[in-house]
Amino acid sequence: MPEVRLLPDDIRIEAVPGSTISEAANKAGIGIAHPCGGRGTCGRCTVFVEGTPVLACNTPASQSSVYIPEAVRLAGQAILTDIRMYDSKSNRQPRAERVTVTLDPPTLLDPASDAERLCDALSMRYGAGVRIEASCLPDLPGSLRADGYRISPVIVHEDDGVSVLSFQRGPLYGVAADIGTTTIVVALCDLETGYVLDTVAVPNPQAEYGADIITRIVYTEETPSGARTLQDSILTALSECIVTLSERAGIGPERIPIMTVAGNTVMCHFLLGIPADYLRREPYVPAARIYPAARASELGLPLLPCGRVMILPSVASYIGGDITAGAIALDLAAKDGINIFADVGTNGEMVLSGPGFMTACSCSVGPAFEGSGISCGSRAVRGAIDNVYCREDRLIYDTIGEQEEEPKSVCGSGLISLLSALLQKGVIDRSGRFTTPENYFTLAPDVTITQADVSNLIRAKAAVYAGMSVLVKQLDMSLSDIDRVYVAGGFGRGINIEYAVNIGMLPPLPDDRFRYAGNTALAGALRVLCDRTVDAGETAASITNIELSIGNEFMEEFTKACFLPHTELSFF
Amino acid sequence: MPEVRLLPDDIRIEAVPGSTISEAANKAGIGIAHPCGGRGTCGRCTVFVEGTPVLACNTPASQSSVYIPEAVRLAGQAILTDIRMYDSKSNRQPRAERVTVTLDPPTLLDPASDAERLCDALSMRYGAGVRIEASCLPDLPGSLRADGYRISPVIVHEDDGVSVLSFQRGPLYGVAADIGTTTIVVALCDLETGYVLDTVAVPNPQAEYGADIITRIVYTEETPSGARTLQDSILTALSECIVTLSERAGIGPERIPIMTVAGNTVMCHFLLGIPADYLRREPYVPAARIYPAARASELGLPLLPCGRVMILPSVASYIGGDITAGAIALDLAAKDGINIFADVGTNGEMVLSGPGFMTACSCSVGPAFEGSGISCGSRAVRGAIDNVYCREDRLIYDTIGEQEEEPKSVCGSGLISLLSALLQKGVIDRSGRFTTPENYFTLAPDVTITQADVSNLIRAKAAVYAGMSVLVKQLDMSLSDIDRVYVAGGFGRGINIEYAVNIGMLPPLPDDRFRYAGNTALAGALRVLCDRTVDAGETAASITNIELSIGNEFMEEFTKACFLPHTELSFF
Repeated sequence: MPEVRLLPDDIRIEAVPGSTISEAANKAGIGIAHPCGGRGTCGRCTVFVEGTPVLACNTPASQSSVYIPEAVRLAGQAILTDIRMYDSKSNRQPRAERVTVTLDPPTLLDPASDAERLCDALSMRYGAGVRIEASCLPDLPGSLRADGYRISPVIVHEDDGVSVLSFQRGPLYGVAADIGTTTIVVALCDLETGYVLDTVAVPNPQAEYGADIITRIVYTEETPSGARTLQDSILTALSECIVTLSERAGIGPERIPIMTVAGNTVMCHFLLGIPADYLRREPYVPAARIYPAARASELGLPLLPCGRVMILPSVASYIGGDITAGAIALDLAAKDGINIFADVGTNGEMVLSGPGFMTACSCSVGPAFEGSGISCGSRAVRGAIDNVYCREDRLIYDTIGEQEEEPKSVCGSGLISLLSALLQKGVIDRSGRFTTPENYFTLAPDVTITQADVSNLIRAKAAVYAGMSVLVKQLDMSLSDIDRVYVAGGFGRGINIEYAVNIGMLPPLPDDRFRYAGNTALAGALRVLCDRTVDAGETAASITNIELSIGNEFMEEFTKACFLPHTELSFF
Repeated sequence: MPEVRLLPDDIRIEAVPGSTISEAANKAGIGIAHPCGGRGTCGRCTVFVEGTPVLACNTPASQSSVYIPEAVRLAGQAILTDIRMYDSKSNRQPRAERVTVTLDPPTLLDPASDAERLCDALSMRYGAGVRIEASCLPDLPGSLRADGYRISPVIVHEDDGVSVLSFQRGPLYGVAADIGTTTIVVALCDLETGYVLDTVAVPNPQAEYGADIITRIVYTEETPSGARTLQDSILTALSECIVTLSERAGIGPERIPIMTVAGNTVMCHFLLGIPADYLRREPYVPAARIYPAARASELGLPLLPCGRVMILPSVASYIGGDITAGAIALDLAAKDGINIFADVGTNGEMVLSGPGFMTACSCSVGPAFEGSGISCGSRAVRGAIDNVYCREDRLIYDTIGEQEEEPKSVCGSGLISLLSALLQKGVIDRSGRFTTPENYFTLAPDVTITQADVSNLIRAKAAVYAGMSVLVKQLDMSLSDIDRVYVAGGFGRGINIEYAVNIGMLPPLPDDRFRYAGNTALAGALRVLCDRTVDAGETAASITNIELSIGNEFMEEFTKACFLPHTELSFF
């Protein structure tokens, strides 16, 4: 396979023969915008192969260096729009499409109505029940006769048949959304080519009512129509994102007959205005795990009014549609060997897959890796230390932004590397206790890590490791049996696997068994949009949730993992 | 069976043993309002049995005289709200209902979502797919836990399963509407008892755009968004009717989860904003014969927003949902013997039924019986002659309103009796020609009938007779084989069967074979509302439309019927 070198990132990637530069770049997590849907007509995806300008969408990836200017990259924060796990080639059978049928003209002896005539023809083709939306019936008689009983309806394939949505002409687009607790990412996709035209990422405005989901649930419990307020908040943000994407692409809402949404269970509840009170109380039951397909008009979203909004089903209260989407994006059910897919935030969600099974669990990691509850912690902002390593006897660090700046804090990846370095240097022992008399360590004038910080970090990393341990032990396996670990999300990209293994957060497996997977929620939502052979309900139903609060197994594994790297050193 | 005498109408009716006075009165076409749904709690249906006040809703009909004051009768013009063919006892299985299920509480080991738990329980009960409307999910978690996992959802039974619409408490109501070209009649019905609480009748405001359907179709063809204008017009009127009924009953829209609508094919098209252009052009094809169930919110009707609006399917372009409703109200498919159901307006629609078959046809009668195109004609307004008969050598007439008033015109029933009297008196001959030198006849100072008027009336009556003739001849039968003729609609009530037979409009059958059936469209819509075992789609599909414009049969029968009473006298 040709190895493509992507510049200025200096990423080397093996391209599938016959794939385009766009596709190769996407696999490396560099999304390229395609305003024309990858048809090679707009010239906006111009990149440089050995200095020569070419269109990324229709130039085969070959053994060469490709310079990808910032201007052609998908908008939004790069990590959030990293849809490397979405392959536009999966766009064989988009969920909504325009089909052309030619009907026999009616006669006095065969006076079936226009609608029956169309339904019969579509039923013959799809072998399924066909409905016509009431709202598009007014356009049927004229459309049918405009071209001699040849008609090209826009249809959507649903679980229980086919629905005719419109008789509008022109290309069709789909919208996929990843509704995260912190950030919303929305992608506009050409349903015919499968190319992502554009993306947009905005903060989730629900943050106004609480930074984390528990605070937001409490808000809805304490505030009259609180769930409605949170629904309005997210719908307004989604609408703005869709309008932005539509305006930039120059298309009207009538061209967008479908949207898919992936989010955690609480976000999906709030999207429909459903209170999520009982998710946070034993036995942790969601109001709904499967969400009825809604019409865009019901939610007030600026799509085709009768267009469908499909919310990917959850597995359980704490294994949401974002994880279902991840399993779909990674094609976990079909993958060879034993795989773990981990999405780590304040919750750690993990899916273990192998021949014929998928199990999942969710554990509370806490906000330590997001910098909360750590005296020197912060998010990955300018002036935060994001990497620490030992050089000879000293600890060296990298700071986000200008190196001359004095560091102010340490972000998640920095904290993991700091913990690893402190252990390596002997400043802390395997139990995390400082071996020095002062019980803290000053990395830079304003950056000090305390005993409490170290303990918090150890608990956080132990939760991740213990979750994985329980999953494999439930199936009488060991972590060494794992062939591949897929790390998803913004957190996964920043961390250095070596350090995460050093502190016993990730299992000690060879480097090549780890894969960074990007935004798997968005990639999965895109896949569902563009490939109707994917049955998200079936995927969710085939994942068995392991409830960690039942029994002592998790607590035992957690306790054992509260050492650096672990109490059982034989594996490390 | 006890014979009840209804006063002051002086109608004698045989009451089914065990039936109430309300039910007996209804069979006679006297609808009684039941604001409490027939529960005997409001006292508004007080009637007088031999002078003693009783509640019509819970007093058995016995061998007695019952005085029914005007104030307790259903609002609207009596003829329009005559739902004698609707039996509230058919309300065994309302299409929307509240059911109570008790669910197992969730546990850590059985943490299925609230929605899945509810769907599973309902699926077990109904053996069908169950969906929950997205809009009611926000109320599910609270409702489920308010009464220890005992919950009473409002469900609607649809063709393809059961949908949960709401968790509101309180009695449920349904709305049935008859959308006529001229008049709209809307009834509010208690879904539990089946009683009609109240009705309202208003002119169809589409009349502003044309008195008849053809003029309205032409309006939509010539006016941009004309079909939309007619849709808005009818929806506004329906909304006002529903608001009137709801306010008078003191109920909110959330209590009305379902509405059924019967109307001719063009009215149903306009209700959904569908242009009906092609209905009036050979091969007379409707855009839709079966109408998708719409949500109330889609149409902007003041019902439960996710409540269903079911439009009864048509048989063909000129055999509409009103005729399907009539076949349902009369239970034609299940009736013994050979029956004809005739609904005569400017179109005459007739259904012939017998063991295992129903055939129908529609013929243009023209507006003569509505008084249009007749020099002395009018609708049944004050000052119109509504009955003419021979006494000795003179023609005597009755006038609507005060008898002292000088008559101004003749309405439909008056025209039929006038034609019969002129024939009997020999003023016209069997071909309709005046035998007198002056070629006209003056009935009253301002009321003169001309040769052209007589010819118009003969063509109108001949169309009705010819339609029936074709139906029976297609099945190798004769009109004398007919066991029962059901005459529906406002026209049917006013006419004197004897005169209609005299002029050869109706076949010469014994008096007791004719039945007046009232507003069968409204009665059928009520039946569909209250009895989900009725499959309107199946009824419509089982009626074979005989297209009279194919072949010469209708023209031959029509020509033969253009005599008084007919060219073939052997039958008369």
